[in-house]
Amino acid sequence: MKPINVGLLGIGTVGGGTFGVLARNRDEIERRAGRGIRITRVADKDLARARALVESATPAGEPPAVVCDDAFAVVRDPDVDIVVELIGGYGIAKDLVLEAIAHGKHVVTANKALLALHGNEIFGAAQARGVMVAFEAAVGGGIPIIKALREGLTANRIEWIAGIINGTSNFILSEMRDKGLAFDTVLAQAQKLGYAEADPTFDIEGIDAGHKLTIMSAIAFGVPMRFERAYTEGITRLTAEDIRYAEELGYRIKLLGITRRVGEGESAGIELRVHPTLVPASRLIANVEGVMNAVLVKGDAVGQTMYYGAGAGSEPTASAVVADLVDITRLATVDPENRVPHLAFQPDRISSVPVLPIADIESAYYLRMRVQDRPGVLADITRVLADRTISIDAMVQKEPAAGESEADIILLTHRTIERNMDAAIASIEALATVSGRVTRLRLEEL
Amino acid sequence: MKPINVGLLGIGTVGGGTFGVLARNRDEIERRAGRGIRITRVADKDLARARALVESATPAGEPPAVVCDDAFAVVRDPDVDIVVELIGGYGIAKDLVLEAIAHGKHVVTANKALLALHGNEIFGAAQARGVMVAFEAAVGGGIPIIKALREGLTANRIEWIAGIINGTSNFILSEMRDKGLAFDTVLAQAQKLGYAEADPTFDIEGIDAGHKLTIMSAIAFGVPMRFERAYTEGITRLTAEDIRYAEELGYRIKLLGITRRVGEGESAGIELRVHPTLVPASRLIANVEGVMNAVLVKGDAVGQTMYYGAGAGSEPTASAVVADLVDITRLATVDPENRVPHLAFQPDRISSVPVLPIADIESAYYLRMRVQDRPGVLADITRVLADRTISIDAMVQKEPAAGESEADIILLTHRTIERNMDAAIASIEALATVSGRVTRLRLEEL
Repeated sequence: MKPINVGLLGIGTVGGGTFGVLARNRDEIERRAGRGIRITRVADKDLARARALVESATPAGEPPAVVCDDAFAVVRDPDVDIVVELIGGYGIAKDLVLEAIAHGKHVVTANKALLALHGNEIFGAAQARGVMVAFEAAVGGGIPIIKALREGLTANRIEWIAGIINGTSNFILSEMRDKGLAFDTVLAQAQKLGYAEADPTFDIEGIDAGHKLTIMSAIAFGVPMRFERAYTEGITRLTAEDIRYAEELGYRIKLLGITRRVGEGESAGIELRVHPTLVPASRLIANVEGVMNAVLVKGDAVGQTMYYGAGAGSEPTASAVVADLVDITRLATVDPENRVPHLAFQPDRISSVPVLPIADIESAYYLRMRVQDRPGVLADITRVLADRTISIDAMVQKEPAAGESEADIILLTHRTIERNMDAAIASIEALATVSGRVTRLRLEEL
Repeated sequence: MKPINVGLLGIGTVGGGTFGVLARNRDEIERRAGRGIRITRVADKDLARARALVESATPAGEPPAVVCDDAFAVVRDPDVDIVVELIGGYGIAKDLVLEAIAHGKHVVTANKALLALHGNEIFGAAQARGVMVAFEAAVGGGIPIIKALREGLTANRIEWIAGIINGTSNFILSEMRDKGLAFDTVLAQAQKLGYAEADPTFDIEGIDAGHKLTIMSAIAFGVPMRFERAYTEGITRLTAEDIRYAEELGYRIKLLGITRRVGEGESAGIELRVHPTLVPASRLIANVEGVMNAVLVKGDAVGQTMYYGAGAGSEPTASAVVADLVDITRLATVDPENRVPHLAFQPDRISSVPVLPIADIESAYYLRMRVQDRPGVLADITRVLADRTISIDAMVQKEPAAGESEADIILLTHRTIERNMDAAIASIEALATVSGRVTRLRLEEL
């Protein structure tokens, strides 16, 4: 089956990631999608950089994508099936998306500002023209939160959503709390690390989060995009002492986007608000640190569910862009074989890679053993492990209880093959100074 | 458009939940799916109970579903479009699913044991017949983890999955840790609470988790279901002291299902194992407590993502069953309007419920103010709040720093309308004993 041809508008951070992921995982993606997905055209103002990027990422022996600086030529190209818009903003990007739709192209975009402000017009045009506009990358980077709301939780009356949906501000709040630093100090540091832009207004004033929240609110409740009604309050006025006082009271401060359905019938309304929020420190979402994002969704049937992951960055965002490309590739066909395959991969592309016996897996280990409290015992045990090149990560030796001559030793080891650990444990159990069996648990840093 | 007719096999806990959710959220679901979804036939051995359940859940003025005790009659009924199998096990359930497929019905099932053991045969038959077999409810209850793996993360080479996918055993481990109790004690308690079955073997020996892991492994890596090769080790031999020692070393013990891709080419293999695992206590997944489930997925592009929610129970599982019904309803048509709608709801069913101004939202609040350190100040402040029926949840009064005459007061309030709080704050700021502005942050228990 002939590959799907993609026209890419803008090959910056996310565009470069999209190009790279499609090239690197080409086989894996084709096994899932049922046909190849290839970027055949790229438009970018910086021609030289775009050409260099395309050249370096194109697999040997393949025709490279055609690079130009005229994005309109790409969206009008009859050979392009899907347009990926990664330019951002709502000037030229809006014109390009509407032009692509007018030319019958499906569109994939990461542009939350565009959708939050002009989504109603864009989706209306797409509906009228019978094309898809997919936007998983617009909210929560690589976290498939749009799909969860649009398809995964369709049984539910969604009651509310609360999300950490701006990595920059979450990084700043995490650092302020961890290190007791002032907002300005951490902001400067975040800019140096590349986590905040030179003009950080959209991130720290809650505007970016407001765009994303507007999109989630629309698809959760079945309402239009109404960013102009959103309340946005940023983190610029937060002080280190408020963070500390909140902590004393058992709370963390997070910049949350909250949308909630309240009232019934005539008095029904929707809350749409972004602001710093105290959250009980014991909640999972209160423990989402640094640039990570998380969205908590409360549905009437499912209860609370949470979705966590990297909310920005080249490849995490590209992960969402490519997922949308696969979705369109799978769905924009009336061929039953090209709907979503039962087992995610096309039935004729299932692999036969074997399942390993447990003896062949690699893990770190927790070992607990009961030993006689006499000199040399520990040396015997560590000798057994050293002989098998198993290194020890941590060790706790307990004192014998009153009147007892035996005590517990607990060891954490570095990773080794289970077969090797089995043999080591057998040798340890054979030591005269060790009583009974060694308790062995596996340990994963994750 | 005529509704989709569903035949329900087994109206126990999950079946009852499915019936209830479809009835309660009928309008919301139809706005999403584009057509009604109605259970028209029910088969259950306990006819009396099934009839009572159907009667009580059917909205007034609607024809109730026809109840019978012959499940084969339902799967062969030409008027049934989709069969929902909630009988469980792999005896009669397998025959029924295959018979439904043979009759050209789409199938929705929550039956992880059936799929892990006979999935290859079942999906082969479905593929040959051109019908869908959807199984979101088989793993992680209402968490849309199957959809995330099958559709949300398609850009990625999945590297590994680690999941808490058995609520019973996670509840037992949480209780053992919290209360320092022995395994047997907590198991008995879990049985009394209904969190563990009379015969808990499948849950506590890791077999149920092994079934679910087998399914996730297949769709993550594009390999067949091979439960017979899975390594399963339960939690029955875990002692309270191991849990305590792990804690001392900075770890929690969780029953994890882990599947990982290792090696390349000829030496490639897949790990498929369920066992108690030490996890660093600082990881989010280590803090998933009680009967909740969470699945951590590592993809090469997206990095780590996590999916959290209720892994079992009537309505959470029904949430997944109904999501599958909506998926099939949306996709089993070649009508472009009936693919997944852009904004989750059908374009002609968007609601106009208004966004509330921030003054109309309800929230709890954190208030910080600087006050003179003299008698009566606190009485003045609490009087202002009491006059507006705002109750105080917690209060911290700081001592003035050396040489200062003013100190901080921090208050947490219960929920009130923001407009009311605005007025209260204005009154507090007008007090002679309060200096400057009141810092106000919103607080959500979530």
